[in-house]
Amino acid sequence: QGILERLDAGEIVIGDGGFVFALEKRGYVKAGPWTPEATVEHPEAVRQLHREFLRAGSNVLQTFTFYASEDKLENRGNYVAEKISCQKVNEAACDIAREVANEGDALVAGGVSQTPSYLSCKDKTEVKAALRKQLEVFMKKDVDFLIAEYFEHVEEAVWAVEVLKESGKPVAATMCIGPEGDMHGVSPGQCAVQLVKAGASIVGVNCHFDPETSIETVRLMKEGLQAAKLKAHLMCQPLALHTPDCGKQGFIDLPEFPFALEPRIATRWDIQKYARKAYDLGIRFIGGCCGFEPYHIRAIAEELAPERGFLPEASEKHGSWGDNLSMHTKPWVRARARKEYWENLKPASGRPYCPCMSKPDGWGVTKGAKELMQQKEATTEQQLKELFQKKK
Amino acid sequence: QGILERLDAGEIVIGDGGFVFALEKRGYVKAGPWTPEATVEHPEAVRQLHREFLRAGSNVLQTFTFYASEDKLENRGNYVAEKISCQKVNEAACDIAREVANEGDALVAGGVSQTPSYLSCKDKTEVKAALRKQLEVFMKKDVDFLIAEYFEHVEEAVWAVEVLKESGKPVAATMCIGPEGDMHGVSPGQCAVQLVKAGASIVGVNCHFDPETSIETVRLMKEGLQAAKLKAHLMCQPLALHTPDCGKQGFIDLPEFPFALEPRIATRWDIQKYARKAYDLGIRFIGGCCGFEPYHIRAIAEELAPERGFLPEASEKHGSWGDNLSMHTKPWVRARARKEYWENLKPASGRPYCPCMSKPDGWGVTKGAKELMQQKEATTEQQLKELFQKKK
Amino acid sequence: QGILERLDAGEIVIGDGGFVFALEKRGYVKAGPWTPEATVEHPEAVRQLHREFLRAGSNVLQTFTFYASEDKLENRGNYVAEKISCQKVNEAACDIAREVANEGDALVAGGVSQTPSYLSCKDKTEVKAALRKQLEVFMKKDVDFLIAEYFEHVEEAVWAVEVLKESGKPVAATMCIGPEGDMHGVSPGQCAVQLVKAGASIVGVNCHFDPETSIETVRLMKEGLQAAKLKAHLMCQPLALHTPDCGKQGFIDLPEFPFALEPRIATRWDIQKYARKAYDLGIRFIGGCCGFEPYHIRAIAEELAPERGFLPEASEKHGSWGDNLSMHTKPWVRARARKEYWENLKPASGRPYCPCMSKPDGWGVTKGAKELMQQKEATTEQQLKELFQKKK
Amino acid sequence: QGILERLDAGEIVIGDGGFVFALEKRGYVKAGPWTPEATVEHPEAVRQLHREFLRAGSNVLQTFTFYASEDKLENRGNYVAEKISCQKVNEAACDIAREVANEGDALVAGGVSQTPSYLSCKDKTEVKAALRKQLEVFMKKDVDFLIAEYFEHVEEAVWAVEVLKESGKPVAATMCIGPEGDMHGVSPGQCAVQLVKAGASIVGVNCHFDPETSIETVRLMKEGLQAAKLKAHLMCQPLALHTPDCGKQGFIDLPEFPFALEPRIATRWDIQKYARKAYDLGIRFIGGCCGFEPYHIRAIAEELAPERGFLPEASEKHGSWGDNLSMHTKPWVRARARKEYWENLKPASGRPYCPCMSKPDGWGVTKGAKELMQQKEATTEQQLKELFQKKK
Repeated sequence: QGILERLDAGEIVIGDGGFVFALEKRGYVKAGPWTPEATVEHPEAVRQLHREFLRAGSNVLQTFTFYASEDKLENRGNYVAEKISCQKVNEAACDIAREVANEGDALVAGGVSQTPSYLSCKDKTEVKAALRKQLEVFMKKDVDFLIAEYFEHVEEAVWAVEVLKESGKPVAATMCIGPEGDMHGVSPGQCAVQLVKAGASIVGVNCHFDPETSIETVRLMKEGLQAAKLKAHLMCQPLALHTPDCGKQGFIDLPEFPFALEPRIATRWDIQKYARKAYDLGIRFIGGCCGFEPYHIRAIAEELAPERGFLPEASEKHGSWGDNLSMHTKPWVRARARKEYWENLKPASGRPYCPCMSKPDGWGVTKGAKELMQQKEATTEQQLKELFQKKK
Repeated sequence: QGILERLDAGEIVIGDGGFVFALEKRGYVKAGPWTPEATVEHPEAVRQLHREFLRAGSNVLQTFTFYASEDKLENRGNYVAEKISCQKVNEAACDIAREVANEGDALVAGGVSQTPSYLSCKDKTEVKAALRKQLEVFMKKDVDFLIAEYFEHVEEAVWAVEVLKESGKPVAATMCIGPEGDMHGVSPGQCAVQLVKAGASIVGVNCHFDPETSIETVRLMKEGLQAAKLKAHLMCQPLALHTPDCGKQGFIDLPEFPFALEPRIATRWDIQKYARKAYDLGIRFIGGCCGFEPYHIRAIAEELAPERGFLPEASEKHGSWGDNLSMHTKPWVRARARKEYWENLKPASGRPYCPCMSKPDGWGVTKGAKELMQQKEATTEQQLKELFQKKK
Repeated sequence: QGILERLDAGEIVIGDGGFVFALEKRGYVKAGPWTPEATVEHPEAVRQLHREFLRAGSNVLQTFTFYASEDKLENRGNYVAEKISCQKVNEAACDIAREVANEGDALVAGGVSQTPSYLSCKDKTEVKAALRKQLEVFMKKDVDFLIAEYFEHVEEAVWAVEVLKESGKPVAATMCIGPEGDMHGVSPGQCAVQLVKAGASIVGVNCHFDPETSIETVRLMKEGLQAAKLKAHLMCQPLALHTPDCGKQGFIDLPEFPFALEPRIATRWDIQKYARKAYDLGIRFIGGCCGFEPYHIRAIAEELAPERGFLPEASEKHGSWGDNLSMHTKPWVRARARKEYWENLKPASGRPYCPCMSKPDGWGVTKGAKELMQQKEATTEQQLKELFQKKK
Repeated sequence: QGILERLDAGEIVIGDGGFVFALEKRGYVKAGPWTPEATVEHPEAVRQLHREFLRAGSNVLQTFTFYASEDKLENRGNYVAEKISCQKVNEAACDIAREVANEGDALVAGGVSQTPSYLSCKDKTEVKAALRKQLEVFMKKDVDFLIAEYFEHVEEAVWAVEVLKESGKPVAATMCIGPEGDMHGVSPGQCAVQLVKAGASIVGVNCHFDPETSIETVRLMKEGLQAAKLKAHLMCQPLALHTPDCGKQGFIDLPEFPFALEPRIATRWDIQKYARKAYDLGIRFIGGCCGFEPYHIRAIAEELAPERGFLPEASEKHGSWGDNLSMHTKPWVRARARKEYWENLKPASGRPYCPCMSKPDGWGVTKGAKELMQQKEATTEQQLKELFQKKK
């Protein structure tokens, strides 16, 4: 059954997690460029990660084609393009995803993301051409449906949906935005409306924000669609990181990005809460992005197992809410084998010298502004010192 | 070259990371029993993890035989023993490790750990018999050397060393203790002395405590050996978690164990600091245990690259101290491409409703004691209320 | 010169701090009732606190008549009304404030606050009668102007302004609301408009929220007045506590209220930042409420000394930005004698087992709701356990 | 009854709190010099604070003569000595303390503290002469007993005890040290032994460390005395601040000292726990130092009311464990009117951008050392960069 048949029938569809972050930690993706040449260089590593998500309950395997447009590979991973063509990267990604999908009951989704061409102000034709090149591979490899994901500007996302719709396959579209909307100030509700009008059957968000914030953004999209009397399935693939301190552009601006985000990683219980909230809002395509490891996806599958009536394969190696601790030798560890315990636990960071939240970096703190501020303060301070001198 | 030739020549030997935790998150090991039946059930997953550690710089691949003694498999993973024999689990572990070791330049170490027989007060003969069964597999598969690891009692660790020494192969021994010593109160220094006297050529600690605490424990071991005029190589394989709030039995007693430890996970920069400190103390076998993912091992290899003169394969996908961010589109992200930035960053947890440290659970807080305490308090409180009534 | 002459001339007027909290800690006010019978019982303590605020730079001494309406004294401090009449409490408050004001150059402001009559749904006539009783004392004692403060409902605040206006004296009105507005959902802008239309010459907020939040509320009031083309002076007297985690009803709902708020207490530097921000927004009546001790008021006076051209008396015992540390024996303490140091310091709590933020209590978490939720969860959990059983 | 009669009879004696910190916040003492010229300049402020402590339950009023030796007044508060003689400061302090003590049932204790003469290496004769000058005033004013407090070196403390013993009055001696002992490395146990041998009847610690640490130090003193078969009463007057992150020299070295310590301030419940622990260890002279406000002293008196059989006067304005909240209008605030609530509450700081602990400043971090370190790191970093270049 196709993605739309499943969703139309009211099924919950579970997405997969974040390849770029997981494979960076495993040693196959370079943080910075974030390009997916591993599909050619180390297919076994990509295949293994797909398998783990499949076992964890993913119903959709996304081809590892993030940032795999030709302009991106040239731009960021110059050294890659020299050795490996854009086409090869995309083809290998499709092959691996299909191979693993066939081991279970999963759909393969071809994915495109925002392009450097758009950011460097190339025109619509050029951007569409770049995306179309990837689409050609997806058509050749006959993926089951398409996802336009990780767009910061709804204009480009709409272009992407238009290109993908040329295929005749179902199209999902997710933007990496928060409740404040896209980088040009278009609200989430308006973004959703434009995407559905362009032809997307499924809309939502991915990446850049934590589950709570992302659900709020999807809620605003839902409201927008309702107001416009449009229908679409909802989708959510957030970070598995806690980022309450994000600004408008999400976790990129947090000082910890990308090499010190560890203390923010979500527990499986955080993700169970996310899955429940997403479900309660009516979201039926529920997955994850950066930070989502296989066990996070399994947490979605386990939380929604009562609704779905089954558990994923990897739950053979897990228990409901820690109940596999019930035979531990220490009584106080046995006492942790229950839902109430894990649900209410406020986990410590073990880092008493670190703060809980950070101020995002950004334009506001550029050097010019700071110097101006300091100058003004220095004057005030001097005046104050003189007053104190006089007082004494 | 064997392990002792390398260490005797002054080489730095890099260990691997934690299989149990990594494979639990990937969906192949069950938290609670923690047994390694995945070597038979899913060899591709175990193989892949070995490969990642090898690429990250590990010079030693430990067979995934943790808790693989027969009594343990029966005790904790009953369902396992029914289907898969202890021998098969151990043999498969050796085969996989050797296969991957041959892809690079790594040694294979057969590992044994503490037994339920000892904890349930079985005698020396019985405990040794259980360990000898594993050793027989290691001899048949001809591993390069042996590690007795994760022992809480030096008495059992000594027995293990004695058994392993029967093989004629070099033996390393690490205990999962902190500066307070073993569970019977034997100091780290005394533990080290007993282990060396029993025949261990390499001694140190693994698991249960964070890098900083573990280094302190090894320091005490070193002092003990010096005082006893004994010589041995030093080894350290700590958690990749921050656990300054541990009690004597380490992270098992922390309320977050084992399903909410995420906020404690070390960054790669934390691990670089650990590697440096370990090296400065004279430790030359430097690796990790639970929580160590491939990128943590790579951090050791990168920190000590100036001393060793080379980088591991996986460093092709990494840069020194974040320098691969130097071409990011945002200037404030580019500004993160330097050592000073990551070294001094105090990463936020994104969890303002959570504390920084936890009180370990333990015997002190059993129900009986608590009730007694509450009773006493209630009386005092009653008296106080009466005094206040009178006052008004 | 009267309050309006000063403000009209562009002067900065500095208010005083919180009597109820300061005198509770000194042992003269009871937390819970919070009534001001100390004016009769311990005039020396009230007088001393007034003096300290005067020395610190207060230009306005408010009579300690908070919650001193007759219905409040009866309602909360029953034992008080038996012994001390409402009139006596109010008269003593006026006498003490005037006595101290005459020691310097301060105005005396008679203050009224919200009444239990309003909350228990008494009608306008009754509420006004209660407030008028206090006003009679203020007229007899000839205070310089009047403040209606600590109102949660703009309707009652308007009634209070109407009563106070009967005196012919200038009237200021501050509500204890945040950016979400009053308890009936009237926005800050609308509240300000209604208060000015009722006759208030000065409007703003006091209590319930931290400086940052309170300034935001006054900003919204300012916008409301501008939109309505009304003119009034702006006033701000927030908590000297950090309360970013407040809900709509402010710090009362925080679990730490009122006996564990210590970790939230603002430093003098926090208050200097507040004074600057308030000034920059155009607020010219700048003071404090609960938590403001004399040194916090002095911090306002010192921050704005360059604008005002003078320092308060108590600055003889202080230095600009810690410069009195410049002769300390320890070089690293001397290094703290500068603005940059204190301005950028992120002070630690010394409480690693405590969180940084709390969830406010409130109607949402009443027992009924919780039980319902738990019931639903229990069912889900049961289903999940059964699925896991089947899986095994 | 004198201090020794009370203690010998097994009575609990409650000390007072910190004058220097409280009066700094009230505007009468200058942080930095910390000298007590307020006894002459503003006796009403000093008198009021004494009264508050008396009402709160203090059985001992210490003369506000901290740092009032002639050399100190000259050294730190030069401007003071010009106007006000050392003798006047000390005399006024005695007069005020006696006046207030007579309002209740309190003893007056004359206090001396460490001298700059000792720190600048003056000899025994000179130091003793400086202390003797203060003693002469105490004799003339006939204080009830004497306290040598705030000594960092046991050698000087012994000299102080010897001088004070010349008076024939009982002598108490407290050092501002932690478990690591005095600044020359003398252990707490050894300090206690020397002080008792010099003639002190009461020994213990004051200032510099939090209650928990201070109790530990007194425990070590107790052990030292027991080992030496000496007898003395135990005394504890710690900070009302949380300082688990202190180094050897206590809170002076914390970056927050002295102007950003607010988040560390103890709640009344923290102090009740302290009082109980101090009592359980056998300490019978229980008071406080910097940070202790009147309500903290009242907390000691309330915690130990069951043992003593009475409450202090100020408890008329307080309730046992918050029970005066039981009539609050909001049900969730009423729910806070119980011991279990306040005892278990982990109060939030409201400062999510701040850490929980700080690294103390000190010699270890002087500029020279830092530069050296940076140089070494730079070299390593350069080597690493070159290796990465080669790799690519």
